[in-house]
Order: sequence, then structure tokens, then C-alpha cells
Amino acid sequence: MAGSELTNVKSPRVKAARRLTKRAFREQDRKFLAEGPQAVREALRLDGVTVELFATAEAESRHPEIVAEAVAQDVPVHRASGEVMAELSQTVTPQGLLAVCRLVHVPLEEALTGQPRLVAMLAHVRDPGNAGTVMRAADAAGADSVILTDASVDPYNGKCVRASAGSLFHLPVVTGAPVSDAVRRLKERGLRVLAADGAGKHTLDDVDLSGPTAWIFGNEAWGLPEEILAQADDVVRVPIYGRAESLNLATAAAVCLYASARAQRAT
Amino acid sequence: MAGSELTNVKSPRVKAARRLTKRAFREQDRKFLAEGPQAVREALRLDGVTVELFATAEAESRHPEIVAEAVAQDVPVHRASGEVMAELSQTVTPQGLLAVCRLVHVPLEEALTGQPRLVAMLAHVRDPGNAGTVMRAADAAGADSVILTDASVDPYNGKCVRASAGSLFHLPVVTGAPVSDAVRRLKERGLRVLAADGAGKHTLDDVDLSGPTAWIFGNEAWGLPEEILAQADDVVRVPIYGRAESLNLATAAAVCLYASARAQRAT
Repeated sequence: MAGSELTNVKSPRVKAARRLTKRAFREQDRKFLAEGPQAVREALRLDGVTVELFATAEAESRHPEIVAEAVAQDVPVHRASGEVMAELSQTVTPQGLLAVCRLVHVPLEEALTGQPRLVAMLAHVRDPGNAGTVMRAADAAGADSVILTDASVDPYNGKCVRASAGSLFHLPVVTGAPVSDAVRRLKERGLRVLAADGAGKHTLDDVDLSGPTAWIFGNEAWGLPEEILAQADDVVRVPIYGRAESLNLATAAAVCLYASARAQRAT
Repeated sequence: MAGSELTNVKSPRVKAARRLTKRAFREQDRKFLAEGPQAVREALRLDGVTVELFATAEAESRHPEIVAEAVAQDVPVHRASGEVMAELSQTVTPQGLLAVCRLVHVPLEEALTGQPRLVAMLAHVRDPGNAGTVMRAADAAGADSVILTDASVDPYNGKCVRASAGSLFHLPVVTGAPVSDAVRRLKERGLRVLAADGAGKHTLDDVDLSGPTAWIFGNEAWGLPEEILAQADDVVRVPIYGRAESLNLATAAAVCLYASARAQRAT
């Protein structure tokens, strides 16, 4: 722990971190904020991602191993007052640990190296909580990568990072990919591209999911536009057995991704 | 549309509705608020549930069929100013329609009449968004009922009603059920009681889900306590194929409920 406690919310160091709550500054500075012990722990597992760490005295005593790991990696650790942490945090109850990280997304080509068998693509998804929850579900289901298309939410949005529960650091994430470009490359790589949409002719139980598959998930409110549906190899819906009109985007995505994971492992 | 526009946020009618944003008053008055066109439409589909409707002029012209249905059912419709709607609404962008409804939950015994084949039980779930999303997923997967145990969130919480996307009105919901009592009755009814927990010996893919099943889902942060796990017939986990530590509660519940729905229909 170098230096004394940061108590001034207007200090240059705090202001430099604070501006990363805004997308434009994240893009300009090529950095973002990861908050809470889980996210910070996962960030530290990646080489050269964590730029600096802010920790309250309480968090430091509660998570000594995280702070020790940062120190071991020569990551500057700043002791921060509760007030400074509240200034930096985007949650109602700050957890006392916050890392400034380098952006971790990769180019589309890099995300598709090897033999990807399961890819989740988010097209026009605007809700950061939904996007992060899909990332977490994709990670859990063993997906090889997550692709956010150009009209989608910023994966570095605080809510998205939080909802991803560390998964943003676990698997290759692509951001800003044009839909047609991504679909074309997925097909070139031998993946079958399935659009998940309530208008699908086939249900999840009717299609053979044993081969390499990329799922496209759309915006919760308006689903997937016609031009994206037209590019998919097939449009598949999650069957609705009760009276619900639809599923929440993240739950529908989890059901689709796990159906793929199961089918691929059963073969 | 009877009477003139309500513009006074302090009027007795507005205050009487406004107090329903608090759980204690919901319990005392035996009423709750359902907000937005989807929830109001579903509430009106049930006999005698909708007590009164508040609608802005804009919402009335956008959803004339909803207002007409209320009028047809002799439900008083109050034209409300934007300011009054903002006072009653629990969302950042009020949708202009808000119904005061009678509580719709049923006793445990009533929820288990007939031959229930799929039941979702929420034990100690505190997050209203998660609870509502599970209700929606249970409805979509064709569950026969949803049981919230005594330490769980109030299903009439505004966030829960919203996340349920109308499903609160679709299937029998039980609230405040003691866990042991519910588990005992589910077993008496011939349902196999499965606790969904990361500590489960079996994964979702190893168990036979073709028979009548009740799933118990626990609190996101601390899962299910030992005494509940001990009452279940089996503890089952959703397999994690990637590096995520766990799944979000609502997505895990959706994956389990859909696995049951699929297995029951395949037999």
C-alpha cells in the first residue's frame, strides 16, 4: 500500500478514474472500471489488464489476498476513503474494491480462431444488465466467445461488467462488430447461425444442435429485425408452454445456450 | 372516463393508491399496483381483480382497447395528469397506465389441486427482479404454480410485478408458505422435490426429469441452506462448462424449468 489514504474526491487520480464511468472517456482512455471483489479477482488473473486498484481499509482487511495479488503484480494500490469509493462506485452499496482495467475485447478474427463450437452474438441489445447476464450464461455454458454487434450496449458499462460477474474476463468478447460481417465469418468458420426469435418456425426441441452453432439474440423489446433474421441459417424459438408472451432476453439466451451445450456433449 | 383529470398528487384517491407502493399497506389494504399496458391487460383478464385504473390522456389514446375493457367491466377509470402518474409510478419512464388490483395469490392447497407436474418454489429469494423473472420463466415453461416461501420477497413489489411481465396473473402464486410445509405437501402430491444448488451431486443432464417435479431455487448470494437441501429428494446443479462460478438465479431457474418441460414432453 503506497502513499496515504485518498480522501479528496477532486484529486486528479480520482477524477481520472471517475471519468471512466462515461463511455466516451472509456473509449478515449482505453480503460474501464471493474468493481467488487469478484470482478477485481478475475481482472488480476489476466496479464497486464489491471492498471491500478482502489481499496478501502475495510475491503483491504476483508480481501487481503486480492490486494496482495495486485502488489505482487506491481499494480499500484490506492487506499481510498469511503467517500472516494462512493464517488467512483456505480452501485448503491460500494464493495470497497475497484480496479481500473485496460479494455479486454479482441478483434472478431481473433475471437474465432481455433475451432469455435458455441458462440453467442448480441444484436442491438441495449440493456447492460441483460448483456452482462448473457455473457455470464455464455461463459457457464462453455461458449467460445461473445460478440456484441455495432448497435449493442458497451460491454464496459458498469452494469454490464457487474452482471457478467467476471465472465467479461473469462472468454473472448468482441464489441462493435457489424452484423453482416460477423455472420459471414461465423459461417465461413463452419458454424450454423441460428437466430433466436419468437417468430421462429422451429422450436429449440425440433432442431439438431449437435454441431458448431452461433446464436444471435436480439433486443428485448423489438427482437431481431428482418434483415438479421434473413441472414441466419434458421430462426428458432424457445417453446412457450404456458401463457407468457415471451421470455426475458437473458433467460431465453441461457435456455438456448444450454440446449446447445447439452446437444454437443451428448454426441 | 368519469370525472375530470386528476392533477393533484395530494388528492385522497392518489394518496390511497400511492401507499400501495409499501408492503405494509399492500397487506393492510389487500391491494397492489400493476403498471404498464401489459400488466393492466393481464389483470383485466381475471374476474374481479382490477379495482380501478389510472390512465394519462396519452396512454388512453394509445391503448383505447384497454380502457374500453375496463369500462366494460365497470372498473372506474381515472384520467391522471403526467404529474399524478409520476407520483404513482415506480418506473423512471411511466407508461401512463396503472391499475389498483386485488391480491391474486392463492393458498398452497389450492395451488396444488389437480395433478401438478411442474412447480417452481422460491426459498429466501429477496431480489424482486429475480423473483419476477423466475415467475415469467415458470409460466413460459408451463409450470402449474409458483410458491414463494415465507422468507421470500413480496410478489406484489413493483419490480417483481414488472419483471413477471404479466405472469403473476397467469398461474397460481402462493406467498409466505413455510418451506417444510410446502415440501411435505408437494411430496404428498407425488412430486419429486429437487433443490437447484451448485453443490448438487448430480447435474441436470444426469437426472431423469420426466416425472412430476418441484424445483426449489434459493437466494442468489447464499444459495439454499442445509436444512432445505436436506428436505429435498435430490440436489441438482446446472453444469458449468466454462469458467463462470455460477449462473444468475433467474437464468439457472429457466434452464432447470425448461429441462423439466422438455423431459416431460419427450415421454
